[in-house]
Amino acid sequence: MLINCVAYEDGNRLADCPIDEISEYVRRPHCFVWVALKDATPEELGTMQREFGLHDLAVEDARHGHQRPKIEEYGDTLFAVLHTVEVGPTDDLVVGEVDVFIGPNFVLSTRNRTHQGFLGVRERAEREPHLLKHGSAFVFYALLDAVVDRYFPVIDTLETDLESIEDQIFEPHLGRANIERLYALKRKIGIVKHAVSPLQEAVAKLISGRVPQVCSNNREYFRDVFDHLTRMNASLDSLRDTIGTAIQVNLSTLTIEETEITKRLAAWAGIFAVATAFAGIWGMNFQHMPELQLTWGYPAALVIIALACALMWWRFRRAKWL
Amino acid sequence: MLINCVAYEDGNRLADCPIDEISEYVRRPHCFVWVALKDATPEELGTMQREFGLHDLAVEDARHGHQRPKIEEYGDTLFAVLHTVEVGPTDDLVVGEVDVFIGPNFVLSTRNRTHQGFLGVRERAEREPHLLKHGSAFVFYALLDAVVDRYFPVIDTLETDLESIEDQIFEPHLGRANIERLYALKRKIGIVKHAVSPLQEAVAKLISGRVPQVCSNNREYFRDVFDHLTRMNASLDSLRDTIGTAIQVNLSTLTIEETEITKRLAAWAGIFAVATAFAGIWGMNFQHMPELQLTWGYPAALVIIALACALMWWRFRRAKWL
Amino acid sequence: MLINCVAYEDGNRLADCPIDEISEYVRRPHCFVWVALKDATPEELGTMQREFGLHDLAVEDARHGHQRPKIEEYGDTLFAVLHTVEVGPTDDLVVGEVDVFIGPNFVLSTRNRTHQGFLGVRERAEREPHLLKHGSAFVFYALLDAVVDRYFPVIDTLETDLESIEDQIFEPHLGRANIERLYALKRKIGIVKHAVSPLQEAVAKLISGRVPQVCSNNREYFRDVFDHLTRMNASLDSLRDTIGTAIQVNLSTLTIEETEITKRLAAWAGIFAVATAFAGIWGMNFQHMPELQLTWGYPAALVIIALACALMWWRFRRAKWL
Amino acid sequence: MLINCVAYEDGNRLADCPIDEISEYVRRPHCFVWVALKDATPEELGTMQREFGLHDLAVEDARHGHQRPKIEEYGDTLFAVLHTVEVGPTDDLVVGEVDVFIGPNFVLSTRNRTHQGFLGVRERAEREPHLLKHGSAFVFYALLDAVVDRYFPVIDTLETDLESIEDQIFEPHLGRANIERLYALKRKIGIVKHAVSPLQEAVAKLISGRVPQVCSNNREYFRDVFDHLTRMNASLDSLRDTIGTAIQVNLSTLTIEETEITKRLAAWAGIFAVATAFAGIWGMNFQHMPELQLTWGYPAALVIIALACALMWWRFRRAKWL
Amino acid sequence: MLINCVAYEDGNRLADCPIDEISEYVRRPHCFVWVALKDATPEELGTMQREFGLHDLAVEDARHGHQRPKIEEYGDTLFAVLHTVEVGPTDDLVVGEVDVFIGPNFVLSTRNRTHQGFLGVRERAEREPHLLKHGSAFVFYALLDAVVDRYFPVIDTLETDLESIEDQIFEPHLGRANIERLYALKRKIGIVKHAVSPLQEAVAKLISGRVPQVCSNNREYFRDVFDHLTRMNASLDSLRDTIGTAIQVNLSTLTIEETEITKRLAAWAGIFAVATAFAGIWGMNFQHMPELQLTWGYPAALVIIALACALMWWRFRRAKWL
Repeated sequence: MLINCVAYEDGNRLADCPIDEISEYVRRPHCFVWVALKDATPEELGTMQREFGLHDLAVEDARHGHQRPKIEEYGDTLFAVLHTVEVGPTDDLVVGEVDVFIGPNFVLSTRNRTHQGFLGVRERAEREPHLLKHGSAFVFYALLDAVVDRYFPVIDTLETDLESIEDQIFEPHLGRANIERLYALKRKIGIVKHAVSPLQEAVAKLISGRVPQVCSNNREYFRDVFDHLTRMNASLDSLRDTIGTAIQVNLSTLTIEETEITKRLAAWAGIFAVATAFAGIWGMNFQHMPELQLTWGYPAALVIIALACALMWWRFRRAKWL
Repeated sequence: MLINCVAYEDGNRLADCPIDEISEYVRRPHCFVWVALKDATPEELGTMQREFGLHDLAVEDARHGHQRPKIEEYGDTLFAVLHTVEVGPTDDLVVGEVDVFIGPNFVLSTRNRTHQGFLGVRERAEREPHLLKHGSAFVFYALLDAVVDRYFPVIDTLETDLESIEDQIFEPHLGRANIERLYALKRKIGIVKHAVSPLQEAVAKLISGRVPQVCSNNREYFRDVFDHLTRMNASLDSLRDTIGTAIQVNLSTLTIEETEITKRLAAWAGIFAVATAFAGIWGMNFQHMPELQLTWGYPAALVIIALACALMWWRFRRAKWL
Repeated sequence: MLINCVAYEDGNRLADCPIDEISEYVRRPHCFVWVALKDATPEELGTMQREFGLHDLAVEDARHGHQRPKIEEYGDTLFAVLHTVEVGPTDDLVVGEVDVFIGPNFVLSTRNRTHQGFLGVRERAEREPHLLKHGSAFVFYALLDAVVDRYFPVIDTLETDLESIEDQIFEPHLGRANIERLYALKRKIGIVKHAVSPLQEAVAKLISGRVPQVCSNNREYFRDVFDHLTRMNASLDSLRDTIGTAIQVNLSTLTIEETEITKRLAAWAGIFAVATAFAGIWGMNFQHMPELQLTWGYPAALVIIALACALMWWRFRRAKWL
Repeated sequence: MLINCVAYEDGNRLADCPIDEISEYVRRPHCFVWVALKDATPEELGTMQREFGLHDLAVEDARHGHQRPKIEEYGDTLFAVLHTVEVGPTDDLVVGEVDVFIGPNFVLSTRNRTHQGFLGVRERAEREPHLLKHGSAFVFYALLDAVVDRYFPVIDTLETDLESIEDQIFEPHLGRANIERLYALKRKIGIVKHAVSPLQEAVAKLISGRVPQVCSNNREYFRDVFDHLTRMNASLDSLRDTIGTAIQVNLSTLTIEETEITKRLAAWAGIFAVATAFAGIWGMNFQHMPELQLTWGYPAALVIIALACALMWWRFRRAKWL
Repeated sequence: MLINCVAYEDGNRLADCPIDEISEYVRRPHCFVWVALKDATPEELGTMQREFGLHDLAVEDARHGHQRPKIEEYGDTLFAVLHTVEVGPTDDLVVGEVDVFIGPNFVLSTRNRTHQGFLGVRERAEREPHLLKHGSAFVFYALLDAVVDRYFPVIDTLETDLESIEDQIFEPHLGRANIERLYALKRKIGIVKHAVSPLQEAVAKLISGRVPQVCSNNREYFRDVFDHLTRMNASLDSLRDTIGTAIQVNLSTLTIEETEITKRLAAWAGIFAVATAFAGIWGMNFQHMPELQLTWGYPAALVIIALACALMWWRFRRAKWL
């Protein structure tokens, strides 16, 4: 589905541009065309391929989707695959895909399975013609920056999640809930990591070594994005490491809980065993058990049993078993 | 066993080519020969070595089989070892081997222990003469791509397996089944990893640094394969990491289960101990136990015992021990 | 908030310099301006950007704060983000940020969320004009060195903490306290690590490869800082590794404790079970139980029971179960 | 002990060469001398050092033995330390050492603590004069290849061992045996790894970067050896990884076993507690317990107790506790 | 404290050299001065700095001590920090420090907190003038070699320690002792690792890439030291890895022990429960219990109880629970 297709000259909006005139605008100097698609059909991609002269393999990738984030050169054109990560209605993470083709005088983006669009990026860019004048590479930067900036709230959510688990990680009766939440969190981190980590590698190539021609004038902007990605990556690694430790700690907490229950079991078993043993002894059928004849024998026995149990209870209490 | 042996000129099928005329066709310009063998005997390999002038060590490797995936240069010839991974009848993974020799004007492939062949690759290539015109390197790409594409369903199977384990990972009575399935899955991942990971390294050399002469015009195609392999590798690493966590989680789940059983054991032991202790006390043989003489003593005792047990049951219930 | 703003010539204090004359002083040869801000407002940063001609992206970073430690080049200006780590009132770690802009003849530093200032650095530098003569790069070194030196006492605190945990790690009843302290310590190490590790990477670029122009004459000083950071990093890694082992050891200690309690439970359960079994047998209602008629039957029974229990107690004692 | 000392010319055996004429043969063009020692004494090494002009440090290393596998250049001479690994009589691994000096026209090898010799290598080489013509580097390759090929059966043994452990890893009563075998296996893998891994690094230098002069014409042969070492290394890493997982799985299996035993303990304790409680109640001494007077009271009681126990047994059975 | 200060010419001892004439000797060609200090005071270091013209930062490091092992260039002078590791009286490890300044014609070493000195190194060097002729770099090599050689016995001690732990690692009642010893050993390994690992990195720079001028003629000697350090590092890594596994194995062993104790507990609890249940049944007060009237009822009951217990004992025995 075509969202919009606009031609720009010297950073200013020139005209909404009909699809079949794209190739004309692309040929004009100082002019570039910025096309945005959503859930593009194979036919639309075919049209675009003809108008912009895109490479077979790149269009193939865009058609199939489900690529790994990457930035590839095909001649003087770049093909970038970005992943969007959005928090879905039931707190799960939804991964979408934005494919961007960047040529010397065109930018073509197509987004799939994403809820939020990039109209805001276009508006902001159009308000700053002195930046938009940098051409298609700046548009690419703006899209990239928008995608990357949207990772931050997601990572914040994950960090908040972890903190709320950590608040109760030493509460033993929550062992099962904690381990389930830690496992779910680890999976979410994996999802974000798969978006961030390959993108960081890809952006690194835009700022060091042999930089693609089309991006060579905007290195500082891409370094800024790279910097954000590096920070996110460090946060994710740190989250992952903490979860690993938290899982180990969870196991220790569970073992402590079991030890405490075993202690209680042992303590109460002991106390009742004493009572039962006394009762059993005075329940024996020997004929000559003088205490059985005493009038105050029974109450005395009850008191002795109670005292013995109380003594044990007190000792277990002191030893922190109860 | 010879599958077929065809000569191509400018991307078009020229002729089925008898084995002993191979060396003639190979010498013709703009012409290349594509030979496919299956479970080649040492004699067949010997013939091929003479016709194509292959290097001793490469032929030796092809004869012995069981090589690690690799791509090696011998002068202007490449020798590639690829592993196929197929899901066998009993859900186990069967690893086969495809050895490919690529010269400036020939391709020789021989497959061992594989169920599925590569006739489809040849058919598709012959339908696209404008691509086949690129020569032997394109044929190599087509074979490589076919082998690599067949890894995807296998990896999907593994991911589905893991998901089905994850669905029941917190069900404690399945502890043993889960750990066995996780272990089996980890082994399967190892098998696929051994096919994918060395191949990725090998293909990397075809797209960066000093690229072998024979592949230098098809770099974008090999980059596409490399990209697939990178994605697979990331999937496998992620699977492996998740399994590691799942094994730890399994242990926590087991410990939780044990704790719960210990709790129940403690609770019921306590309840019965109370009953037994009361019964033991009223079973003592003291002569002066006034309650024993009462008509309603026995029913009262039963009620007292029942109430004591019920009280304990209720407290254990509230504490979630029962 | 402006702390101070001073112009220096040939290493000597020239004059306190009004903000709106900064750009004049900056243009004078052999002269450099050193400005210190604290919790700078966007307006102050805007003024500084105009006076010194700073890059948009760098000023943006300084405005937002919460950057990762880094050192970036913008033309002939360096932009450095440093983290301070201070031990807060309740023993927690407080992370602050110092942003430094270094040009050929100016240094601008602004610190946020830090308790301690850098007046001492300026005083010490002014006492050594022969060093201050090296210009703005030397001032940057002095600030960097001050920030880094303040990490040492923090790391010492962490090491002391770990040692005090290690002193009681094998005391089983402290299992829960130990694991909580280890977990808290691990988090603190992570905080310091996030300050030290990226800074080490950044400083490495000042001493090897393509060194930024402005720092090229002070390489030995930056190598000294790099050396400190390397040492800290090694200490932190070593701490982290030790904590990992300590958590494992904690689990073993807990398991040992549980085993010992199980042993005791088993031992006492056995002893009482013997007493109860004997009592039960002599409590049976058979008519012909000759020992029941004996005058000394009852005391003998008590002695037998006591002896049996004592024997078991002694054997458990010898087996170290009690 | 001198095994043999032969001079070769153009790949053909020229003559058995007396030790004190070695230096003469070494000076002849197209000629090289191949000396094999076994458990060389310091005196023998001294003689060889004089005849071949070997470097002090290399001879020192050969004299002391117990070096790490390595290949070092001393001028135009190479010094290689290789480890042999043999399966000893009691299934333990015996590590021996082969030190090889390779000059432009000599090869000197001395083996220590190895059972098997290298006579077969010499025989095979002498049968192929067209290969032996390549000179001392080819001899080095042949020795290297022989040493490396002998690792394969050792690694196979380890893999077979692991498989036999895996067959019984989920059998809980074998927990102790399994963990002992896994630990022993891990140690053996470490031993082989110490032979393979440094050698792989060393051989890598013979095929890439600045290749030592003496080996520059045999690169493909050394690449073949490198390939074998890479494969072995991958196998060993994979073994090690699997053992790590197996140890974790073993712990889970043990925990499962403990849980099952706790379940049984709980079940039987429950069943007997029921019986004991009933018996205790009917053993109370209340005067008015009407059921005690009934003729069929006793058999009814027995039946009730039996039924209660059976009911519990059945429920535990259904819950898989028994 | 000055140990000695000697001038050498062409490898031969020229004269004991008074401290204030050092700078004269240093200026003479073919001559170098070798000064050894012990626990040098700041004043002594100040004198030396003036005489040899040492760099501020290096002298600062030497004054403060507690540096990480490193080798740094200051102009044509090298500054090396080495750690000595000695086994102290109570089997703990004592870390000392040796700081060495190496100039084209001087060597200054100062050792702190070390028990053993380096007089032996000087004596050995003076006995070999042909080596000492190589100048200050050779003296540096000799000191370095002496320090490194003293690590070997320490590492041997650690390996012996580990072996003695391994001999008893599967003995469950030693669980606590084993884990304490493993933890202590791990800490010791960390201490040695901190001496060896950074030194290896530092020495690597003396043999590859841009080698400092002063060492360029002794590369083979430094490679020899590097080789030793590599071997040690591998040993330490291997020790560390084994300890990690041993800690895991220890946990398994503890779990096995607990399982065995639980089994025994269950078995004995079962046996006594049977006895108690029988006794309880015959202790019931039903009027019509015919077996109670039989003369041989009591002995028969005892036999039945004994047989039941024996049967259970035998079955538990067969199941290896007892």
